[in-house]
Amino acid sequence: MNRDGLKKLLEEVRAGRIDVDEATRRLARLPFEDIEVARVDHHRELRLGFPEVILGQGKTAEQIAQIAERILTESSNLLVSRTTEEVFRRICELAPDAEFHPQARMISVQRDRTERGYGTIAVISAGTSDIPIAEEAAVTATAMGNRVSRVYDVGVAGIHRLFGARQDFESARVIVVVAGMEGALPSVVGGMVSVPVIAVPTSIGYGASFDGLAALLGMLNSCASNVTVVNIDNGFGAGFVASLINRKR
Amino acid sequence: MNRDGLKKLLEEVRAGRIDVDEATRRLARLPFEDIEVARVDHHRELRLGFPEVILGQGKTAEQIAQIAERILTESSNLLVSRTTEEVFRRICELAPDAEFHPQARMISVQRDRTERGYGTIAVISAGTSDIPIAEEAAVTATAMGNRVSRVYDVGVAGIHRLFGARQDFESARVIVVVAGMEGALPSVVGGMVSVPVIAVPTSIGYGASFDGLAALLGMLNSCASNVTVVNIDNGFGAGFVASLINRKR
Amino acid sequence: MNRDGLKKLLEEVRAGRIDVDEATRRLARLPFEDIEVARVDHHRELRLGFPEVILGQGKTAEQIAQIAERILTESSNLLVSRTTEEVFRRICELAPDAEFHPQARMISVQRDRTERGYGTIAVISAGTSDIPIAEEAAVTATAMGNRVSRVYDVGVAGIHRLFGARQDFESARVIVVVAGMEGALPSVVGGMVSVPVIAVPTSIGYGASFDGLAALLGMLNSCASNVTVVNIDNGFGAGFVASLINRKR
Amino acid sequence: MNRDGLKKLLEEVRAGRIDVDEATRRLARLPFEDIEVARVDHHRELRLGFPEVILGQGKTAEQIAQIAERILTESSNLLVSRTTEEVFRRICELAPDAEFHPQARMISVQRDRTERGYGTIAVISAGTSDIPIAEEAAVTATAMGNRVSRVYDVGVAGIHRLFGARQDFESARVIVVVAGMEGALPSVVGGMVSVPVIAVPTSIGYGASFDGLAALLGMLNSCASNVTVVNIDNGFGAGFVASLINRKR
Amino acid sequence: MNRDGLKKLLEEVRAGRIDVDEATRRLARLPFEDIEVARVDHHRELRLGFPEVILGQGKTAEQIAQIAERILTESSNLLVSRTTEEVFRRICELAPDAEFHPQARMISVQRDRTERGYGTIAVISAGTSDIPIAEEAAVTATAMGNRVSRVYDVGVAGIHRLFGARQDFESARVIVVVAGMEGALPSVVGGMVSVPVIAVPTSIGYGASFDGLAALLGMLNSCASNVTVVNIDNGFGAGFVASLINRKR
Amino acid sequence: MNRDGLKKLLEEVRAGRIDVDEATRRLARLPFEDIEVARVDHHRELRLGFPEVILGQGKTAEQIAQIAERILTESSNLLVSRTTEEVFRRICELAPDAEFHPQARMISVQRDRTERGYGTIAVISAGTSDIPIAEEAAVTATAMGNRVSRVYDVGVAGIHRLFGARQDFESARVIVVVAGMEGALPSVVGGMVSVPVIAVPTSIGYGASFDGLAALLGMLNSCASNVTVVNIDNGFGAGFVASLINRKR
Amino acid sequence: MNRDGLKKLLEEVRAGRIDVDEATRRLARLPFEDIEVARVDHHRELRLGFPEVILGQGKTAEQIAQIAERILTESSNLLVSRTTEEVFRRICELAPDAEFHPQARMISVQRDRTERGYGTIAVISAGTSDIPIAEEAAVTATAMGNRVSRVYDVGVAGIHRLFGARQDFESARVIVVVAGMEGALPSVVGGMVSVPVIAVPTSIGYGASFDGLAALLGMLNSCASNVTVVNIDNGFGAGFVASLINRKR
Amino acid sequence: MNRDGLKKLLEEVRAGRIDVDEATRRLARLPFEDIEVARVDHHRELRLGFPEVILGQGKTAEQIAQIAERILTESSNLLVSRTTEEVFRRICELAPDAEFHPQARMISVQRDRTERGYGTIAVISAGTSDIPIAEEAAVTATAMGNRVSRVYDVGVAGIHRLFGARQDFESARVIVVVAGMEGALPSVVGGMVSVPVIAVPTSIGYGASFDGLAALLGMLNSCASNVTVVNIDNGFGAGFVASLINRKR
Repeated sequence: MNRDGLKKLLEEVRAGRIDVDEATRRLARLPFEDIEVARVDHHRELRLGFPEVILGQGKTAEQIAQIAERILTESSNLLVSRTTEEVFRRICELAPDAEFHPQARMISVQRDRTERGYGTIAVISAGTSDIPIAEEAAVTATAMGNRVSRVYDVGVAGIHRLFGARQDFESARVIVVVAGMEGALPSVVGGMVSVPVIAVPTSIGYGASFDGLAALLGMLNSCASNVTVVNIDNGFGAGFVASLINRKR
Repeated sequence: MNRDGLKKLLEEVRAGRIDVDEATRRLARLPFEDIEVARVDHHRELRLGFPEVILGQGKTAEQIAQIAERILTESSNLLVSRTTEEVFRRICELAPDAEFHPQARMISVQRDRTERGYGTIAVISAGTSDIPIAEEAAVTATAMGNRVSRVYDVGVAGIHRLFGARQDFESARVIVVVAGMEGALPSVVGGMVSVPVIAVPTSIGYGASFDGLAALLGMLNSCASNVTVVNIDNGFGAGFVASLINRKR
Repeated sequence: MNRDGLKKLLEEVRAGRIDVDEATRRLARLPFEDIEVARVDHHRELRLGFPEVILGQGKTAEQIAQIAERILTESSNLLVSRTTEEVFRRICELAPDAEFHPQARMISVQRDRTERGYGTIAVISAGTSDIPIAEEAAVTATAMGNRVSRVYDVGVAGIHRLFGARQDFESARVIVVVAGMEGALPSVVGGMVSVPVIAVPTSIGYGASFDGLAALLGMLNSCASNVTVVNIDNGFGAGFVASLINRKR
Repeated sequence: MNRDGLKKLLEEVRAGRIDVDEATRRLARLPFEDIEVARVDHHRELRLGFPEVILGQGKTAEQIAQIAERILTESSNLLVSRTTEEVFRRICELAPDAEFHPQARMISVQRDRTERGYGTIAVISAGTSDIPIAEEAAVTATAMGNRVSRVYDVGVAGIHRLFGARQDFESARVIVVVAGMEGALPSVVGGMVSVPVIAVPTSIGYGASFDGLAALLGMLNSCASNVTVVNIDNGFGAGFVASLINRKR
Repeated sequence: MNRDGLKKLLEEVRAGRIDVDEATRRLARLPFEDIEVARVDHHRELRLGFPEVILGQGKTAEQIAQIAERILTESSNLLVSRTTEEVFRRICELAPDAEFHPQARMISVQRDRTERGYGTIAVISAGTSDIPIAEEAAVTATAMGNRVSRVYDVGVAGIHRLFGARQDFESARVIVVVAGMEGALPSVVGGMVSVPVIAVPTSIGYGASFDGLAALLGMLNSCASNVTVVNIDNGFGAGFVASLINRKR
Repeated sequence: MNRDGLKKLLEEVRAGRIDVDEATRRLARLPFEDIEVARVDHHRELRLGFPEVILGQGKTAEQIAQIAERILTESSNLLVSRTTEEVFRRICELAPDAEFHPQARMISVQRDRTERGYGTIAVISAGTSDIPIAEEAAVTATAMGNRVSRVYDVGVAGIHRLFGARQDFESARVIVVVAGMEGALPSVVGGMVSVPVIAVPTSIGYGASFDGLAALLGMLNSCASNVTVVNIDNGFGAGFVASLINRKR
Repeated sequence: MNRDGLKKLLEEVRAGRIDVDEATRRLARLPFEDIEVARVDHHRELRLGFPEVILGQGKTAEQIAQIAERILTESSNLLVSRTTEEVFRRICELAPDAEFHPQARMISVQRDRTERGYGTIAVISAGTSDIPIAEEAAVTATAMGNRVSRVYDVGVAGIHRLFGARQDFESARVIVVVAGMEGALPSVVGGMVSVPVIAVPTSIGYGASFDGLAALLGMLNSCASNVTVVNIDNGFGAGFVASLINRKR
Repeated sequence: MNRDGLKKLLEEVRAGRIDVDEATRRLARLPFEDIEVARVDHHRELRLGFPEVILGQGKTAEQIAQIAERILTESSNLLVSRTTEEVFRRICELAPDAEFHPQARMISVQRDRTERGYGTIAVISAGTSDIPIAEEAAVTATAMGNRVSRVYDVGVAGIHRLFGARQDFESARVIVVVAGMEGALPSVVGGMVSVPVIAVPTSIGYGASFDGLAALLGMLNSCASNVTVVNIDNGFGAGFVASLINRKR
């Protein structure tokens, strides 16, 4: 129930069409309905170009299809993460305009392509093995209405490659940096720009990388003050926050 | 605002004494006021013999005295944890009937001594070094209106001592077991009784005890199904939950 | 041998029907028989509506069937945890009234349905992926003679859902809260109620969740004093302890 | 050397006033001089209302004073973190308008008070013990030209307090959430808003908090997609990034 | 070269049958030859009833057969650990008297059955899942010429079972205790006897057992002074050391 | 109550001098009394030349003196570990023949100097910083009636020193090896002898030694099969177990 | 652009054949082009007998073949690590002189066999299971133009084997030591020689080896000052650095 | 005993001046004496410009003075690490030409200043707080007869500083890189040069740096193949190995 509904109910009470006991009963549940309203607001907010996102992992193709169908009745856009080509074929039956992003392992439907970011989001990855996570960030940011600039395979052990690509990220409004192994790239990029850098550690590596722990700790201890960190392999989260930072107001 | 207040407001609306806009404005804030009511309920609940608790750690004697003064205007009982004799002397100025529990490092004021538990709470400790944490649990449970039975220094490496003391804990409604080092005691006790056992790992030990981690992991992996665990050295929490379990309804 | 048996033996000795040497021999084993008695008592206690539980993991269908057969000769109820549909079909040959709980991965036989708890046990889960563990707790509590209220998919990132469901758990005698990822839900629930909360961390998550470690540590450090914790994914343990807390005396 | 300097050099070469070998020698060092230029650009960027920051930890009062003196000849503003009142007295000799922020342990000089953020930055803290880190974030954000809204002591175990304070943070452009122990607050706040949330774990806690590790892991595993994380106790970093996000373009 | 060989060489030198340079050359390599001698002594020592042991893990059936063949030319006994029935069939071609121990996953050939221990070695296991590791210890100790007493499934949560079996281990010269989960059994056993206890943590458990880490830490922190520990799942090592302790002199 | 006492009681029952109810009551407590007997046996065992040991850490001089006084009335020998010279002076008032071992931080009274081991115990340490822990083992073994051979400062980075000292340990019945840093010494020693080796990791080291964790893990993973491990810095435990292994039967 | 290209450009400017604006534009990109030059230099350096290396892991046979083809147009030598025999067959189509090293899981093409090291590189391994990693180091060093001496299966638990093989490594210019389990071998070898020792921990082991962590920590804490460490299982890195150390100047 | 001594002994045997039994007795101890010879060789090697090093930590000024006195009778040079100015004053009494290096916390006596390295050793540090460890490496390398080039405060967050200083390290024969926090600098430097890089993690940092663990893991996972790692804060070890690499042959 939103503010208008509330007003209408009170007018019914005033007019005597709803008695006080009935209104009391209805309003007693208001706190949560009102929060429900908040949820609706929140949803409306999100619908402003931001897709509802389905985490594909651990769901069957059929379950994903059901959720997708419900979302697409209310929303122009859709995003499915950590999914497969098999799910994509199932989604195509509902939405023939769906796209599959094999590296990012994502499905997107983007009927509303309004640009909602006022700058560019750069997505930088250290190694070729980090590209799937970088793509997850890039596809998410694109689906949320942003221009995205990809700068891949510019790890710190060949720092000239990063310098050579500087023009591709130095004018971005926010930068996502994806790296495994020692996770040093966000610090270097962070020192070269004056915008927020979102660091994504990946589980790429072996031995003392401990499935991304080394990269995670490295990024948390970055000597560059403009770096924040998300979970290991959380390309989606990085793309999501980057979109919020870049969002037009 | 509770249900009666809500009804009254609606009647005022119906009677035309409060206009719809004003009522809408008031009700829009209702969720949180209602939650506010919940808080008051919650407080009332707690006041039913359960003292307000002040965590003494990191507060000055003067800060503790101020909070204590405010509590004692509304409440019969008071509990201060992780505190010192110096604070106790300051509290005595406010409440000459305050007691100091040096081992538990707690201060209690207990003007309302109604018994609120319907059984006994047994507090068992493995070693003499674990006694301060055991006492923190015991003093908390006593302050919350329970009969408490203490069984100390019955570690598993002398299992006959535990058996010898069985009559002191086998009729308890809930048992708190405090142990450092390998933390094995809760499993043994858990296998001897059919009531809930709350395990408290302590930081007692050295080397590979890693400040209580060994005891904590041991307790979490207990092969006795009736064991739950609280944080390392959290005697207060164990005494608190034990009291909730033992509370008369 | 219980107290009556002991008395009878002594009377036989007194009456000269059993000689002293024979009685000495029998009694020399008494400590353990007496403990055996304790075990029998313990069993009797458990039989009062509490099923014998078989941990299915690592046992063959045939092994489980043999244990189940022995239990069902002495006991009305049976519970098998971490099992499969294949085992269920085998158990059905013994007990056609057996039920399979696919989400909880449990089999139950419940011929004695006496209600043994005096309140309700609420089982709350954060995400849909946590439901199998939540169901393990719920099925256990049901099998042990409790009324169970399920509140699923109310994670903290959509706190209004939890508030909306408040009526379903705020009158419970004890609450089991199941959550993976950051494990924040028990703290929030703990702050809303004044009954014991048993927190179950799950291994749901990825990256820095470290197979449930993040959730486990979060729950152990809960700022709500009424929270205790069991092992990662230990839904059975949580349901078991909740039943002990809720047991009628 | 900037582009103009480069052009001038080439004109000198063309005019024959500088010979080719000399020009070659000068240009061979160009990459680093140009990067040097970048550094100057970078500095100019930072000077646009962003203070130079001195990390006080591990430096003597005299060392800090010398660096501060140099900064204040070029810059209107100054910020010293992790410092003491003794250092403050030394800075006052240089800058009588310096301010000391005892909770944040920071010194600021703010001669240029241009507002550079276009929204508000909210800083939320869970417990009273987390306030020093929250203040570090708040003072940093203020010094960088932002309006800051403080919402303190609203931990998740009393969720109604957070709801009661919602109006103080729901319109912010970016939110910093500071929490120790289980670190659950960022997830709850993250679920209530649609702006970026920067989570700061603190080392507040004991036992299984492992000096902030529990809070850190909790935040990294947040089920709210708009949460990013900085290092344990890194209030400055959070305030810095929040300012970059909020910066007018 | 042993002492006699050395003496003979010197006598040849004295007699002028070997010249000084040649003798110098031979003796320059003496350190390692002498150590070589030590190795031979060491081997002789081991041959006194102790089988050569082949770690089967990571070797093909053919490789194991080749090593076994070489051992059996010099030695009466043979032991292969962490192996399979397939390897057993291959070994049977060489040694039709070989035995396969399926639970222990070991093959033994024991042609020399001299008893070499002067007491009994007891092997105690906590749960049924720990039996394979316990069997590895028991088969090793048997193969090394010891009488072995097995006491299985006497975990601490049913302490009466351990007491009931006391006569089976209280007269042992050394005890191996195998336990997973919380690893509490060695402490309890250690407190009941006055002989050395060798604790073997197993990887049995789930969640916070962290593949045996919880049991390992528990055992290292044992409050019983007569407990030493071997690696997780190292039943062979425990059986080996127990045999050395029990060896007749 | 032992078997004779039991028989006597039954005869009294038979003779009618004790009635059945009284006898039942007495026998109901038998399990624990019998265990009590076990405790006495255990004590007698220990008294056979093994001192009662007081852990000095965390006890006042006065507390230690009181326990020591009680022990010395029943026992010839006494051992206090982790203690100070101040405590020693206090003990001297009770036992002027007490000795202080400053490196081991132990006090011993040894009135009964019967030799109880049939071989020698060698105590080997890697570095000079490990000597206090090595001395704790050596003093314990001496106080328990063993001949002890000390071989100090023979770390693996100068392996010739270890070889040079071989005659001092190769004839020992059991060897204690104390090492910090990488903890490699027990593996090397273990490979040179065919007796049990008890490895004691020490907290000596810095950085990635993590307070002895590196040495502990190294020792647990020893490739020598005759190595078992005790807790970090647990020299006493190693000396105690070594004495049990070496004990005459 | 290298120094010659730069000079040529300036001469064109001087001669008026390129105007100043065009030259400015070209030079503005110089920093990175110059770094590009550095890269080329770097490549030239590497081409001096050092193969380009392809990490095979995670690449298809086709991808590897494409990269290999490109390398072999510019370079005489090629090295593929962590690869398979299937890839080898594909490479043979391009380079019939390719060799496969099954233990090292590497493919090499070595058309330029100039010796580039001035001493020998010794590669020592502790156990037979460590040989694949040792071979990775040895094959890398050979491919980089070094004489390599292999000393395998000389673990510390049979130290005489290491001594017996001393002549095979004591004259090396640099030594690579590969060990799993406790990782003690580098310390022992380090103490026997006065050249750099590169320690490679392997993931060989079980239980508390924690996938190579025990060996890694042991090596980092080596008491021999001439030991440095690379990542777990990083035989390639060790062989690479050893080659750089041994390189003729 | 060296080869000449051995020959002389044999000649005495031949000449009948030493009888065979006596010679046998002497030679029986040869292995270790020969190793003793090796030790002397080793010492001679080290004396070739390499100082004996005393680890000052945990030794009294007097103990250090005694060891220093002994070293200076045989050796021209001396190095004391982790020491204090007080020890320096004591050493000055023995060696008035001693120098104190306050940042490195080292004392050196360098009477033999022969240059023993054929190239330069560069020591690079990331932050000013890392300088003490960098100085420890630099002073060690200087004392071992090397030219040392220091490049300090060139952390990756201001990568242009590192580029600006490139000429100071790009011609070095070996580079030591010292960094705390995220430990990213060795990877960047490693990618810029083709010589061995020795990475030294420092304990500088806070929170998730976990006393240097983050830097350590980062360096072990370096994507640059020419990086090896020493223990946290082990500047001495890095300087020592760098000297061995740079040593003239």
